[in-house]
Amino acid sequence: MGADFATVTPSYSDLRIDPDRLIRRINELGEIGKIEGTIGCARLALTDDDKAGRDLVMTWMQDLDLDISIDGVGNVIATMPHTADVAPVMTGSHIDTVATGGRYDGNLGVLAGLEVIETVITSGVTLERPLAVGWFTDEEGARFAPDMLGSLVYVGGMPIEDALEIEDADGVNVGDELTRIGYRGPVPCPGPAPHAFVELHIEQGPVLEDEDVTIGVVEGVQGISWTELTLQGQSCHAGTTPLRMRHDPGVVASRVCCFIRDLALEMGPSQVATVGVMNFEPNLINVVPDVVTMTIDLRNTDESLLQDAEERVRSYIDEIATSEGVEVESRTLARFEPVSFDPRVIDMVEAAAHKQHLSSRRLPSGAGHDAQMLARVCPTAMVFVPSVNGISHNVTEFTEAVDIEAGANVLLQTLLSLTETEF
Amino acid sequence: MGADFATVTPSYSDLRIDPDRLIRRINELGEIGKIEGTIGCARLALTDDDKAGRDLVMTWMQDLDLDISIDGVGNVIATMPHTADVAPVMTGSHIDTVATGGRYDGNLGVLAGLEVIETVITSGVTLERPLAVGWFTDEEGARFAPDMLGSLVYVGGMPIEDALEIEDADGVNVGDELTRIGYRGPVPCPGPAPHAFVELHIEQGPVLEDEDVTIGVVEGVQGISWTELTLQGQSCHAGTTPLRMRHDPGVVASRVCCFIRDLALEMGPSQVATVGVMNFEPNLINVVPDVVTMTIDLRNTDESLLQDAEERVRSYIDEIATSEGVEVESRTLARFEPVSFDPRVIDMVEAAAHKQHLSSRRLPSGAGHDAQMLARVCPTAMVFVPSVNGISHNVTEFTEAVDIEAGANVLLQTLLSLTETEF
Repeated sequence: MGADFATVTPSYSDLRIDPDRLIRRINELGEIGKIEGTIGCARLALTDDDKAGRDLVMTWMQDLDLDISIDGVGNVIATMPHTADVAPVMTGSHIDTVATGGRYDGNLGVLAGLEVIETVITSGVTLERPLAVGWFTDEEGARFAPDMLGSLVYVGGMPIEDALEIEDADGVNVGDELTRIGYRGPVPCPGPAPHAFVELHIEQGPVLEDEDVTIGVVEGVQGISWTELTLQGQSCHAGTTPLRMRHDPGVVASRVCCFIRDLALEMGPSQVATVGVMNFEPNLINVVPDVVTMTIDLRNTDESLLQDAEERVRSYIDEIATSEGVEVESRTLARFEPVSFDPRVIDMVEAAAHKQHLSSRRLPSGAGHDAQMLARVCPTAMVFVPSVNGISHNVTEFTEAVDIEAGANVLLQTLLSLTETEF
Repeated sequence: MGADFATVTPSYSDLRIDPDRLIRRINELGEIGKIEGTIGCARLALTDDDKAGRDLVMTWMQDLDLDISIDGVGNVIATMPHTADVAPVMTGSHIDTVATGGRYDGNLGVLAGLEVIETVITSGVTLERPLAVGWFTDEEGARFAPDMLGSLVYVGGMPIEDALEIEDADGVNVGDELTRIGYRGPVPCPGPAPHAFVELHIEQGPVLEDEDVTIGVVEGVQGISWTELTLQGQSCHAGTTPLRMRHDPGVVASRVCCFIRDLALEMGPSQVATVGVMNFEPNLINVVPDVVTMTIDLRNTDESLLQDAEERVRSYIDEIATSEGVEVESRTLARFEPVSFDPRVIDMVEAAAHKQHLSSRRLPSGAGHDAQMLARVCPTAMVFVPSVNGISHNVTEFTEAVDIEAGANVLLQTLLSLTETEF
């Protein structure tokens, strides 16, 4: 069923958020858990600082007379009061951060959603469906693994009982911490499926800035394959041992590192490949290493291509390790299939950018987001805005005010379109 | 001038050392500083254990009524009394060890020299020149840098005043430690040049064992080129950063590691190349490294080939770092030219092995030895015997008794030949 313009005011597409109010709130929230001498902050999930951040955002939700629900895993959803009992169009993200976090990652999506709702309420526009904004518990996973925990539980991907028992490094569990900070709510999990979901987030990468594009239209999330290799060779003297008698795991590791780079280049831009960890033992200048451990991070937006990459890497490792006489132990550390967002919602994000004369490009997300969980239960997409120097999870994380304003306005128009779209 | 058989007995070439006595002494010395539960020992230079080891070997020298000289840097040379005032044919090595040392490295050369002298004295053979056996202070360099310190000072490569001021990691200097253990002797440095010098040593590599050869006829010592590279790239997210925007020092390091292996293979067996150290920062699975440090160890027996290898590696690093957009800082950690031993002495070692029906092969030394210092002042060569599994600088270091016996007999016959050879 197509759009129905009957119940919205004619000024609908002229609505714009208030950038000063939004940025004021981002900065006010960023003061909580602030890392002194920086613009970064640390609000690990369910800590006192996370509670203080939650309490602050809660007051803003209450000021707007939104219906606030807190569920059993501490997800907080604020919905505009509405005459009809219909599923809301939802936005949101998270407000927990990593230990060296910035003030934009996650927070932007929650506060921009709040700003969109305040803008709509202030305008007096009547919507066919209400808007809702939420934050999900422990998206970062920096304190409690796995990441995206709250949204995973929200969509029924993990039983709440299991989630509550997850412990941090000190043996403190999610359930006790939720109770302690007062966010173990009465609303059951999984939660109700929204009509649709759109998340605004910083890119956390360099592509938009590099191409001088304001709006990233996110088509999906890359699939991830993480492997740890332990390469067992034979330590020997770098001077006295001829090459033909060596079993050098450092050479095997290096060849694998070169191979995955070359493979990704050959496969094209959908494939990325990284060796982030490399440890030589004994790590002495004149000793051929005994053992090398390394990690391989492969990502692709296409599951079959990702499988193909994995297979080719596996087969190369076998070949090169055999030829060097090195033993390989391989362990999968993580494996997630790619997530594709809803083409109709993707189109609507792109159209909203276009109508506002904002430059845009489609791109995948290289990082995980709550939206990929919501995509299991409703039509979903994301909006990215540029990260200066591509930096995030770092106290220097920054996004320009003009980009924040643009992203929030694209979010606003997309959400409004979704209120009048039936799927 | 050729050999002159006038003054030696007819039984000359039938002389053989006493293997039991030699191995008993090796094991007795190996008990000092013994690492419990192993056959290894730790007698770092100028420690109490080194003093105890020196004192023990000194008693054996005294039992043979040898003329013992102790010089200002603690080198001890014991010479057979002789009627004529002629330069001795010298052998020797060192009795200090690394912290996880074996009982053969160095010690074999000193005790085999002593055994040769005892054998000659017992036989009543009269020599044209006396034999001498010495040990040189701090060959390992494990406590005081540089290694081969005592022999360096002996040949005039470093003024004694400089050597005495060298400090260990705790700030204790060589001079004070020599005085403390009673080995700061009166004999001036540099010492007198011997007529010739031959050192017996374990191979510390796998070649002889691998080829089932008993005697290594050492032609020289490889030249060494040690370089440390600091590769400065740009840290970024392994998911969100396209390959074309990366400056990944890990990829550069890996390509360099592959290149030096391939280069050495192409250059042939005289060239070896090793990356022993590799450090990624921040060393996280999903982060492209910011900085990688690594070392390159290149060795060749031919100086011009070593220079060629260095130049090709340098040029490859420039090329690959530029193409990846990574900054390179390069630092030379060590650079020694190859040492070639005297072809006449090499021939004599080979002939001695041949006459005793022992298998032999010529090979270079991949490690440094006191003999390379002595080669600056007199005709010099070395004899190697096999190391089980090529292992040394390790408590499992071992050489079979039969090989020790063979090596000591080759040393004996070579030294006897040298007493009647004028250069």
